[in-house]
Amino acid sequence: MNDKTFEMTMLLDFYGELLTEKQRECMNLHYNEDLSLAEIAELSGITRQGVRDLIVRAGASLTSAEEKIGLIARFSQQREQRSEMLKKLTELEELTTGRARELVDCLKNELEAINL
Amino acid sequence: MNDKTFEMTMLLDFYGELLTEKQRECMNLHYNEDLSLAEIAELSGITRQGVRDLIVRAGASLTSAEEKIGLIARFSQQREQRSEMLKKLTELEELTTGRARELVDCLKNELEAINL
Repeated sequence: MNDKTFEMTMLLDFYGELLTEKQRECMNLHYNEDLSLAEIAELSGITRQGVRDLIVRAGASLTSAEEKIGLIARFSQQREQRSEMLKKLTELEELTTGRARELVDCLKNELEAINL
Repeated sequence: MNDKTFEMTMLLDFYGELLTEKQRECMNLHYNEDLSLAEIAELSGITRQGVRDLIVRAGASLTSAEEKIGLIARFSQQREQRSEMLKKLTELEELTTGRARELVDCLKNELEAINL
């Protein structure tokens, strides 16, 4: 997956609902299902150029949403914080036994389960 | 602060950048500065009814953004998860000493510092 595809996949995941249904469908086919513009054109009955325009415009909407809302930036900061905390919990596992160890393992699981 | 004001303040904080400048300004004056419609009308040179319409429409845009993106729901879930984890860390403080205790305190501070 190249950088552009990765970025668009993330943006679609967070902000896809802001697009029209047609935009979302084309973006999904192109970036998640890896279909070419020609293939999407054939499937959707739009011209290849029409599909390209639609995808460019949808991409701009998603990018603008992230600039305004900053959800991805926020979650990526949280992911870094989590990974720092997981390191400390791993060190704590070595240092604890009994009930304390139980709590540490519980914390590790809870931290890993947070949807980021 | 009533429920509506609290909700709008949160929505403005997360999604305010999606509004036009005029909408954001009126919403801010009304919900954050607690100005009446008449006062905002006088300040902005719009009619009182115009201010009301603008605020209603802006509120609908913010609510719709949350329905589509779910940022507030997500953060409120994270806040609950954090508070559960803080309870466990407080229990762990009692059970640890030395380096382990140091790590626990560090984790508590890091968890509290996360911007939710």
